[in-house]
Amino acid sequence: MAFKSLEWLDPATLRMLDQRKLPTETVYNDYSNYADIAQAIKDMITRGAPAIAVAAAYGLALTAVRSQAADVDALRLELTTAMAVLRASRPTAVNLFWAMDRMEAMIANPALDSVDALKDAVLAEAHAIADEDIEINKSIGRNAMPLVPQGAKIIHHCNTGSLATMDYGTALGIIRMAHEEGKDVFVLLDETRPRLQGGRLSAYELREQGVPFKVIVDGASGHFMRRMGIDLCVVGADRVAANGDTANKIGTYNLAVVAHENNVPFYVAAPTTTIDMATPHGDEIEIEERTAHEVTHVGDCQITPDGIEVANPAFDVTPSKHINAIITEKGVVYPPFEENLKKLMGK
Amino acid sequence: MAFKSLEWLDPATLRMLDQRKLPTETVYNDYSNYADIAQAIKDMITRGAPAIAVAAAYGLALTAVRSQAADVDALRLELTTAMAVLRASRPTAVNLFWAMDRMEAMIANPALDSVDALKDAVLAEAHAIADEDIEINKSIGRNAMPLVPQGAKIIHHCNTGSLATMDYGTALGIIRMAHEEGKDVFVLLDETRPRLQGGRLSAYELREQGVPFKVIVDGASGHFMRRMGIDLCVVGADRVAANGDTANKIGTYNLAVVAHENNVPFYVAAPTTTIDMATPHGDEIEIEERTAHEVTHVGDCQITPDGIEVANPAFDVTPSKHINAIITEKGVVYPPFEENLKKLMGK
Repeated sequence: MAFKSLEWLDPATLRMLDQRKLPTETVYNDYSNYADIAQAIKDMITRGAPAIAVAAAYGLALTAVRSQAADVDALRLELTTAMAVLRASRPTAVNLFWAMDRMEAMIANPALDSVDALKDAVLAEAHAIADEDIEINKSIGRNAMPLVPQGAKIIHHCNTGSLATMDYGTALGIIRMAHEEGKDVFVLLDETRPRLQGGRLSAYELREQGVPFKVIVDGASGHFMRRMGIDLCVVGADRVAANGDTANKIGTYNLAVVAHENNVPFYVAAPTTTIDMATPHGDEIEIEERTAHEVTHVGDCQITPDGIEVANPAFDVTPSKHINAIITEKGVVYPPFEENLKKLMGK
Repeated sequence: MAFKSLEWLDPATLRMLDQRKLPTETVYNDYSNYADIAQAIKDMITRGAPAIAVAAAYGLALTAVRSQAADVDALRLELTTAMAVLRASRPTAVNLFWAMDRMEAMIANPALDSVDALKDAVLAEAHAIADEDIEINKSIGRNAMPLVPQGAKIIHHCNTGSLATMDYGTALGIIRMAHEEGKDVFVLLDETRPRLQGGRLSAYELREQGVPFKVIVDGASGHFMRRMGIDLCVVGADRVAANGDTANKIGTYNLAVVAHENNVPFYVAAPTTTIDMATPHGDEIEIEERTAHEVTHVGDCQITPDGIEVANPAFDVTPSKHINAIITEKGVVYPPFEENLKKLMGK
């Protein structure tokens, strides 16, 4: 990859690719404190459930490394404040909360009894989360390979590639691996209104990887299932409930229903950190409502008349009955999801 | 309405609202010959199956009224040429062909044996097609009223209002009539990528009429069926096959499938001129493929990376099994559509 979604630089800086400006501009921003990172997550400078988790972990690392705290308790207090702010940045993707929980448990370890020890541990843990993400994505890809036939025609929604993760990607990582293994795949990318992560970001990644693809409007997926023949759909996830219901980018539910109607297998690709066993089913997942401007405008171009109202949920929930399998780094989970996710998460 | 989609002006001019520029600019273009009208239909200056039919009829009227033909045979030849060019402007909406067939039959009438008689008859027939369209739309609205409950929450796709017709509208005419009758309706408008007829045009019309509405992205319709509760979906049509399969703006099929899944009644509103008994089923309907620019750009804003490919069908086909009723000016048709459309069209 010629780009990196997130990169840690010394001294204590997180560099993030400004994904709002892709594909027409490639701009990197440098961050030195957690508050700016929380704002950047809110503003979707970086996005994608795994990437948000890594960015937030590095937000804590910045706080630690740059801290002037005189003692370890003062540092713990700073980190606790930072965690609260980072947790509040976006509500739906659970990976963020998982990363903060993991950091919190580590920070609470009484063995870290000096400022320097705690600083080192926080940075090391952030690096570990980032490095593990890449390995997890490759494992997801390997686990998915038996599900991707030679010459597969695939529909993908949103962006789940290197830009949505530390690197490689989840659903788009599967497509990348299939392409690298010579499976001769062809992809239709839902452009994914309102923020066009498919048309802007997934197209950017697949072009760079040389994967053959075309961009379509979100409403066209069913037409192509009927007239072109599609072998599978694969998407990422922001939160998978204990029963398999999956919150993902708005438009995922429509795609899943239309896939089901056309007997097209519908797969969710996600690290186990996206699975939220504490949420029994999807109706309990909070759906973030975002600004009207995402719908009324594209870039600086106004679409709608002045003064009209918009409803703009960032995510929807796909009931597990429309999902054929959930592909994780620990294995592929099939229905009944409630039972089989419990088994997987118990491993 | 403060605007008119189409207006005949003396001497021999067709004024058309440039719908590509709405809602930010209100620009009217004046046309004096059929070739420019055919190009304007291609370019979607005007659009909507009924409006295209009226525009093409007036294209013939312009040809007739402005003709320098020395005798009636020469005038018939000019009109035949104009009809061929107008027929070739867009392939999917059948109303265009219906209007040309109707004009052709009238023009062939040997009783029209002078240049002046033929000129007058062509103009009168174009006016008749335009005037009838408004009455037909109001009849569609009246026929639909029993299907719209008090307080109905309605999803609409594309634009089917005054802008898509001579006036009043088909599906959006139903919503307008329900609002005028005090039914307290609330509408979610699919923005309708790629050309955003919902976000631009339907929003423009409903705002003017004072109908409460919000614009949503096309992928969000299922989310609102699940979380808000929707009472019905209503859309227009570009061609209804003899078995009820319906070609309409891309995204209609996905909406219909998701409505069906959620037990939301899905209605097609169309004049009988949209029903094409010569096409047995929807798979035989030619689907127009439009320029990539509609997907790669919104206005002047580039969305996608340079040099990528796009698939951009303008329409899709909804199988009749997902349609609860087809609402025409002659009555509401229920399944079995093949049988009941035959009865309706035989009237």
